[in-house]
Amino acid sequence: MITMTELKERSLLGLKELDKAEIESILNRAAYWEQHPSKVHAALSGKFIANMFFENSTRTRFSFEMAEKRLGAQVLNFTAAASSVEKGESIYDTVRTLESMGIDAGVIRLKPVGVLAELAEKIKVPLINAGDGNNEHPTQALLDLYTMRNHFGSLQGLTVTIVGDVMHSRVARSNAWALRKFGANVRFCSPPNMRAPELDVPEVTMEEALKSDVVMMLRVQLERHEGGKLKSAEEYRASYGLTAERASRIGSHAIIMHPAPVNRNVEIDSELVEHPQSRIFKQMENGVPIRMAVIERALG
Amino acid sequence: MITMTELKERSLLGLKELDKAEIESILNRAAYWEQHPSKVHAALSGKFIANMFFENSTRTRFSFEMAEKRLGAQVLNFTAAASSVEKGESIYDTVRTLESMGIDAGVIRLKPVGVLAELAEKIKVPLINAGDGNNEHPTQALLDLYTMRNHFGSLQGLTVTIVGDVMHSRVARSNAWALRKFGANVRFCSPPNMRAPELDVPEVTMEEALKSDVVMMLRVQLERHEGGKLKSAEEYRASYGLTAERASRIGSHAIIMHPAPVNRNVEIDSELVEHPQSRIFKQMENGVPIRMAVIERALG
Amino acid sequence: MITMTELKERSLLGLKELDKAEIESILNRAAYWEQHPSKVHAALSGKFIANMFFENSTRTRFSFEMAEKRLGAQVLNFTAAASSVEKGESIYDTVRTLESMGIDAGVIRLKPVGVLAELAEKIKVPLINAGDGNNEHPTQALLDLYTMRNHFGSLQGLTVTIVGDVMHSRVARSNAWALRKFGANVRFCSPPNMRAPELDVPEVTMEEALKSDVVMMLRVQLERHEGGKLKSAEEYRASYGLTAERASRIGSHAIIMHPAPVNRNVEIDSELVEHPQSRIFKQMENGVPIRMAVIERALG
Repeated sequence: MITMTELKERSLLGLKELDKAEIESILNRAAYWEQHPSKVHAALSGKFIANMFFENSTRTRFSFEMAEKRLGAQVLNFTAAASSVEKGESIYDTVRTLESMGIDAGVIRLKPVGVLAELAEKIKVPLINAGDGNNEHPTQALLDLYTMRNHFGSLQGLTVTIVGDVMHSRVARSNAWALRKFGANVRFCSPPNMRAPELDVPEVTMEEALKSDVVMMLRVQLERHEGGKLKSAEEYRASYGLTAERASRIGSHAIIMHPAPVNRNVEIDSELVEHPQSRIFKQMENGVPIRMAVIERALG
Repeated sequence: MITMTELKERSLLGLKELDKAEIESILNRAAYWEQHPSKVHAALSGKFIANMFFENSTRTRFSFEMAEKRLGAQVLNFTAAASSVEKGESIYDTVRTLESMGIDAGVIRLKPVGVLAELAEKIKVPLINAGDGNNEHPTQALLDLYTMRNHFGSLQGLTVTIVGDVMHSRVARSNAWALRKFGANVRFCSPPNMRAPELDVPEVTMEEALKSDVVMMLRVQLERHEGGKLKSAEEYRASYGLTAERASRIGSHAIIMHPAPVNRNVEIDSELVEHPQSRIFKQMENGVPIRMAVIERALG
Repeated sequence: MITMTELKERSLLGLKELDKAEIESILNRAAYWEQHPSKVHAALSGKFIANMFFENSTRTRFSFEMAEKRLGAQVLNFTAAASSVEKGESIYDTVRTLESMGIDAGVIRLKPVGVLAELAEKIKVPLINAGDGNNEHPTQALLDLYTMRNHFGSLQGLTVTIVGDVMHSRVARSNAWALRKFGANVRFCSPPNMRAPELDVPEVTMEEALKSDVVMMLRVQLERHEGGKLKSAEEYRASYGLTAERASRIGSHAIIMHPAPVNRNVEIDSELVEHPQSRIFKQMENGVPIRMAVIERALG
């Protein structure tokens, strides 16, 4: 039987509580997996992993499934019916059910605030956060750090500006927590009604954002802006979009990032998605070795 | 080619027609699998099993998939689109299609009455019932029997009261048929408009139900009670719910069961779900070795 | 890295551009797989294949998945949410994303016209067309050819009449292109407002169709006929349905085909589906070895 201490060490709930050495060791292990591209490893042969997506995301599920299968694990997918309203209690019952059936680890994505933290206290197998409300999305931030480290060699002193609706963004939160541990200079550029002052990250203008080493665009969900200051995709693009014109003014050493899927010509112009300075598809590529490292860590 | 006799012996359509010795042999084989927890066996290596769910149930599908993969089988999932109305004829065409593609056995869950029995006459691979309208749900009853036998040592003379809407319950039917073969004393406690007199099971009051060795609660589907006597969750709980107060009066040797998923604070109070006398998650755990035994039997 | 030439040779976008020898080699390889029914081969062990279904079809997906798993490949399924409107651009982003994650080949089904051809120019892994708008459906036509060749020995000189809405039918298009390469005599029998004159296939009457070696019925989608000449299932059946009466007049050597799923008693009478001269379920059976041959070819 696994102890509660081991369980906490193997789970990945967020980056806020993870120390720098631990993050570094995940990034290094991902580099190992990237350099050992043999197709299916036997590392986790006979282990069962459940991907439990209470919030839909076929792309993220696909990335986890690829990582799990490359490690030789058995994969079971659980997706909540689109129609069912999943409350904290019913999520708990489902996760407890799948645990009872004998899974070795669970990857979980869900919306309700605070439920993941509660689950981690009660469930006896390691849990990996694949998107937790607007709290954290640690594997996304890890693959972002990995992508930046591969490009710049180090995260120390890097200026990273995250542009968009940071208030609702778990990607922004996980990146901010993690990047600051490595001495990066994190800034936000966000609409006045979409800020996250509790993170204590300085706000900069769009002009200032273009002077960064990394310009990280967030996916905009326009339906959240209704009744707010930004009414249309055109308005959003004009104020906070990375247009081709703006992109022409970033440094030649700088890179453009986005967690995807992108809204082309809203937060980022279509022609920039595969721009030589864009790392958008590289980020997705890096997601697989990062998740391999995280899953391997979960299963000891 | 498999003969019709072999096919009937390997399929599991219901417990009504299965004799006691056959049921016992499944329970014993499940005990074997429970005691051999190596993660993936080679028993069914190279066999293809289709999980054909014309009625949605991600939890039951997950349990079967876990069992199939532990036996080393290849698994293919077929789930009817939520939007499509699946009539008997189109279910037949689909099952016949998947049979044509070369599956070795099919696990099937469906709603329309009588279709499974028809399929079993026409399809040439063993079929396993994973929920058949309001007729039978044999693997659920088998795991229930297994759970009771593990707790009490024997089913002979056990008093089991099934509480709730027995009229629409395939779980109640399969349990009643099977438990009586083992000399258990089965009783129902059900709302007057939700009874199944054709089963010839005595009805008892809720007070009497609390004196049982096993109090088995059924999931209530309140939408079925519209226009009937029970209008609200509160009313149902007051009349037929296992409240904490009622549970305090069951015997100290007795156990509480429920096929799940539960409606917390409707048919069972939330605090009872993981009560020391509850076997709810244990039932789900037992589902995997039971289904391993049933699938192994299907594939000879 | 695979060259663009190799990529084109391994992909299967349609039969129009494929030469006869190449089609023949696929049919011959399918015959090999049909005769080697060992359950899971190691041919593609360690290869990852993504089934990307932007247009839903659980039957076709199941057939591909069966073929892929029999070859020993790792399979990942991606199905677009029913609710999402998938435009060409977002399909590209998704396919590019899955490519980034390291798949070795992609099976793709989609609706928008021209998108598959565009994808094939940009994506660096072989793509297999599993249904492309109303353009082509090559694996369906290959299994149709295979079924005919198995029955008649040769396709040369065979009279094949395709009955129904050929205008919207990718099955009709792929069959017409391929059959003519083999010297078959292809004819259409279609409602006046549902024709495809650009294919230059002669139109015949229903009476004439019954004199064919192969009567291939298409699935009718009545919603497309609204406002057109055919208003109801009954009317359609009367004019273009293969009724039992009409079937009684086909040659004793002739066969009935249909790509399935069928609308019983609309384009074909229910009692004909498993008629001795029907090859409908045989077609589905043949789909697996055909797809094994196509996938094996894609992965070199």
